Amino acid sequence: MKQSLGAKTLTSPTPVWIIGTYDKEGKPNLMTAAWVGICCSKPPCVGVSLRKATYTYGNIVERKAFTVNVPREVDAKKSDHIGTVSGKNVDKFSKLKLTPVRSNIVDAPYVEEFPLALECKVLHTIEIGLHTEFIGEIMDVKADSSVLNSKGLPDTNKIKPFLFDPGSGTYYRVGAYLGQAFATGKSAR
Amino acid sequence: MKQSLGAKTLTSPTPVWIIGTYDKEGKPNLMTAAWVGICCSKPPCVGVSLRKATYTYGNIVERKAFTVNVPREVDAKKSDHIGTVSGKNVDKFSKLKLTPVRSNIVDAPYVEEFPLALECKVLHTIEIGLHTEFIGEIMDVKADSSVLNSKGLPDTNKIKPFLFDPGSGTYYRVGAYLGQAFATGKSAR
Repeated sequence: MKQSLGAKTLTSPTPVWIIGTYDKEGKPNLMTAAWVGICCSKPPCVGVSLRKATYTYGNIVERKAFTVNVPREVDAKKSDHIGTVSGKNVDKFSKLKLTPVRSNIVDAPYVEEFPLALECKVLHTIEIGLHTEFIGEIMDVKADSSVLNSKGLPDTNKIKPFLFDPGSGTYYRVGAYLGQAFATGKSAR
Repeated sequence: MKQSLGAKTLTSPTPVWIIGTYDKEGKPNLMTAAWVGICCSKPPCVGVSLRKATYTYGNIVERKAFTVNVPREVDAKKSDHIGTVSGKNVDKFSKLKLTPVRSNIVDAPYVEEFPLALECKVLHTIEIGLHTEFIGEIMDVKADSSVLNSKGLPDTNKIKPFLFDPGSGTYYRVGAYLGQAFATGKSAR
């Protein structure tokens, strides 16, 4: 018998991804987001939800583009900091000694020091409520060779990203390998 | 210097959530989804993307409701199996000895044996491409008391959910506590 917790965004786990944008003067900015997720395979798309009050919101409306950067567990302090100050007042790249790299394919910067970046152009803008969801088409993915497996694809075990737990307001590491998808459950009953 | 991997859904990590629905005859069904994420805080909403070819797609269009169930790492085999067979041919609840519980608030069943369930009614339907995103308003969250922390909120450390890695097609456990959100980065530079 389960108990009712009310109408709340209580789930587990959620990713911690860093959104990169340019403002109208061309200053690069970053924000931390957990209300995110892949939302289509063809065309490849990612959904990123944010509040209109954020500096990044205006940047995406202006530039129609953003990057999704995947930080590693060793980047947790910088990632958390990015989520607590506004690009209106702070140059977060400069403050955190991060390097903006201009995407060659969309009008947004990605983070040199984070191992994986999705370069996105806005395909849909969905007004939901407090948050607006920007659905971005993934035009290219850029990765450090150090996080690729033998097939040249990003491997979570090498990236070592981390997670946000909405219920407890905490971060968790990714743990050990659990099994092969579309295989481990063959004999389940 | 990063290398280009092409326009693909390569990121890390993504959740493994199980979507519960009824078909038009009232048979409960489950599907496994990783193209998901919270997408608004007020009203609380979750986005779930799926292909029109799935049995669940028709069920959601018909019933305008679904549940999002969070399985534990010990449920990985059953969860993987749910993702490899269709509800058109198989009664997955029965086959996997799972118990459908009728939601008291939306027209969809949740899984008794999984520790956390979000009960959702469809607010928006976004046609993106191969996948359609259903944005569901979270009307209530039901949880086993065993996964709640001292504040009565779900704790990832107690749920022990697991992750999908799109790059390598594998599952990973959630690992150790890494820090407090909106706090650990205060002194970052």
